[in-house]
Amino acid sequence: MSLTSDLERLLGPGRVRHHPLDVAVFAKDAGVVPGSVLAAVLPETTQEVAAIVRLANRHEVPIVPRGAGTGLAGGAVPTEPGLLVVLTRFTSIEDVDTVGRTAWVGPGVINLDLSRALTGEGLHFAPDPSSQSACTIGGNVGTNAGGPHCLADGTTVAHIYAAELVTPSGDVVVVGGEAPDTPGLDLRAVVVGSEGTLGIVTRVLVRLMQSPPDVATLLIGFPSVESAAATVSDVIASGLIPAALEMMDKRMVAAVENFVHAGYPTDAAAVLLAEVTGPTSTVLADTERIADIAREHGADDVRIATDDDERALLWKGRKSAFGAVAQAAPDYYLHDTVVPRTRLVEVMNQIYEIGDRYGLMMLNVFHAGDGNLHPLVAFDAKEPGMLERVQAAAKEMVKASIEVGGSLSGEHGIGFEKRDLMPLVFSAVDLDAQARVKEAFDPLGLMNPDKVLPSGSRCFDAAGVRL
Amino acid sequence: MSLTSDLERLLGPGRVRHHPLDVAVFAKDAGVVPGSVLAAVLPETTQEVAAIVRLANRHEVPIVPRGAGTGLAGGAVPTEPGLLVVLTRFTSIEDVDTVGRTAWVGPGVINLDLSRALTGEGLHFAPDPSSQSACTIGGNVGTNAGGPHCLADGTTVAHIYAAELVTPSGDVVVVGGEAPDTPGLDLRAVVVGSEGTLGIVTRVLVRLMQSPPDVATLLIGFPSVESAAATVSDVIASGLIPAALEMMDKRMVAAVENFVHAGYPTDAAAVLLAEVTGPTSTVLADTERIADIAREHGADDVRIATDDDERALLWKGRKSAFGAVAQAAPDYYLHDTVVPRTRLVEVMNQIYEIGDRYGLMMLNVFHAGDGNLHPLVAFDAKEPGMLERVQAAAKEMVKASIEVGGSLSGEHGIGFEKRDLMPLVFSAVDLDAQARVKEAFDPLGLMNPDKVLPSGSRCFDAAGVRL
Repeated sequence: MSLTSDLERLLGPGRVRHHPLDVAVFAKDAGVVPGSVLAAVLPETTQEVAAIVRLANRHEVPIVPRGAGTGLAGGAVPTEPGLLVVLTRFTSIEDVDTVGRTAWVGPGVINLDLSRALTGEGLHFAPDPSSQSACTIGGNVGTNAGGPHCLADGTTVAHIYAAELVTPSGDVVVVGGEAPDTPGLDLRAVVVGSEGTLGIVTRVLVRLMQSPPDVATLLIGFPSVESAAATVSDVIASGLIPAALEMMDKRMVAAVENFVHAGYPTDAAAVLLAEVTGPTSTVLADTERIADIAREHGADDVRIATDDDERALLWKGRKSAFGAVAQAAPDYYLHDTVVPRTRLVEVMNQIYEIGDRYGLMMLNVFHAGDGNLHPLVAFDAKEPGMLERVQAAAKEMVKASIEVGGSLSGEHGIGFEKRDLMPLVFSAVDLDAQARVKEAFDPLGLMNPDKVLPSGSRCFDAAGVRL
Repeated sequence: MSLTSDLERLLGPGRVRHHPLDVAVFAKDAGVVPGSVLAAVLPETTQEVAAIVRLANRHEVPIVPRGAGTGLAGGAVPTEPGLLVVLTRFTSIEDVDTVGRTAWVGPGVINLDLSRALTGEGLHFAPDPSSQSACTIGGNVGTNAGGPHCLADGTTVAHIYAAELVTPSGDVVVVGGEAPDTPGLDLRAVVVGSEGTLGIVTRVLVRLMQSPPDVATLLIGFPSVESAAATVSDVIASGLIPAALEMMDKRMVAAVENFVHAGYPTDAAAVLLAEVTGPTSTVLADTERIADIAREHGADDVRIATDDDERALLWKGRKSAFGAVAQAAPDYYLHDTVVPRTRLVEVMNQIYEIGDRYGLMMLNVFHAGDGNLHPLVAFDAKEPGMLERVQAAAKEMVKASIEVGGSLSGEHGIGFEKRDLMPLVFSAVDLDAQARVKEAFDPLGLMNPDKVLPSGSRCFDAAGVRL
């Protein structure tokens, strides 16, 4: 009996997809490299997921969990013929506790849908990746996703109290708990960001944030990238932590303005988008403070949006950045590195230099407040040799970020696209420690294999033998 | 050759303590139950710690890491004859990066000493447990310690970017990394709070916080516990997150005032100590807001300290609470449970009722902002049957907290005193998942055994066999 027939008996034929068209659709995420899909299944309950995992184990077929497929690092792409477990039907939002500010949510719920469902309660889910109108909570958990508002609120791991997980052996466990600081080993924090390598998350208890009583959004044009970066540093140094602090370079502003007509200052060398929240008195004080600091650094164009429509328009510019780039070229490669805030300008200049050297069109839009750079290469993959150039430049850009004390990934994950760069950050012994934990969860190595950890991470078996 | 002779050859006799007097001193932490110590060693380098671990493995002797011994849950107390690895000589503070706001710090550095060393740089280490003048950074990491200022800043795990760890096999690994959000499995978050069960932390990269430009501290007296709790809820609901929001009941205020004479209102039914920080304009706005909310709830006594001396005096009251209780009785048992903020009053009343039923003297001082209760029983352990009564009452109080959706421990850890209560929070499969990770780090089970996880947690081996 084949795995596919076993699965069809379990789920019925409609929820087991292996038609060549389906397979082609599911073989890619939003990154650039396709994978190899045996079949995609669409379970609807935790028990079905557990049964699927046990069936796949029996057939020794690798399993890859998938949400909306908006990932950029190949985390949901099977590197060898595998079974995709697609969680988009897990769309329940249950046990909303408006006082304790939590809810149990299915991994298939779309990020923005969750916040929209809670608008009436004055609550929202804080992580807001740019893909929030399409990406799922499960994907946010897998990559420990960030977003503009993670500067003040933290990435996804700070917003997940507990997760129900089908383990690689098909058991159901709950990691974390209802209380914010659950005793014992914090497996919740290991599962969040593990990109589906430790099991399949089937339900999460999310932390909901109170929507602030008042909000102001500032759009500030600067005469130079340096003056914008210095403003970011001084705002943080003043003791303020704005809800968001985003930066765009001149080229990105031009692309965005051409696309959404939000009135972004196209003559500025760099633009900051800042947001402050809180009681009205706090918002007024903080807005003035940020505007003052910006003016001290030569900003002559400070626009303050206080009504919801204007705020939405300013944010539309930021959130449409990647769409705007599609006007310039059919494909893009989006980087995701982190550098110390104080080295922003230096690394940006290096990145422009690398782009120029490879003859690539670079644009920059990023989370300046926490040093999370998103340089973007716009290109046409059909041009011969282009993809190789883009990837070679990518490697140099990542290295430039790590050399100043930065990191490989801010929020998009490692997947398989970046896993071979992990030794730039971790020693062999460090990677071995991670591989041991992976092995403790997944002794057979069938749960999203070849992701996150480079092959051969478990090379220090001698350490165990020594005992 | 005995372990002790091997250790003496490694460290010299002065750093291997096994005289009965030494053994008696090291057999207890600040909790109530003593353990069994074969010897205590005082290493000074990571390599020495690694060599000690390998020697102990060879002799199959359990190892227990220990800092200043201020723990309250028996985490640093060996339950069977074991080797104490005392880390108080790891007092280095190195690579202070005042721009990136980090430093590499030894686990033996005393919490308050770290912040004092950085005063000139305008930086501090945010977690501030009440024992901060005695407890070590290593102990803070082991228990994921909190403190009054963790309401806004988070517990220790939010302030440790990386940890160097001697594994139970004697290898040296670094978990986490220089960047705030390191890719891969977040072992850092598992090591923080694991109470020395996964290895011995020999160095940590701490996150330093900028000392705020301005601070105001409010001391507010309330006519009832209910009005104080309602103020806490309304302050948080207003969108403000004060730097601290502490509460004391009438009896605790009386004990404290009698001890430090800080001018606490002894006629109030409950007292709130609130602190706001930020630029002066924000601090002024937030102070007024909190005072307004308190007055709406009937507070007639709002005292605002703005100069450093008065602030220090108000905080001295709070931080001396446990010392103050020593005037009333020679021993105390300090609870550490968490309840949803909205159930504070209900659980406090239950706790008073349990205390009355067992004939115990109860006082309350706690982190109201995050629902972390610290009811305290003052007693005389020499009174026959008293310790049993205190422990039986403790169990009932923990259960009352868990029943309303709370947790077993906010910040003091599980140790062995609470490990048998873990099944109140976790299912057998959940505990098994934790035990598997423990096993991945420590296959021999010699690293601080019998702590955190109840015996028999690894009972689901059948799940592995099924594969």
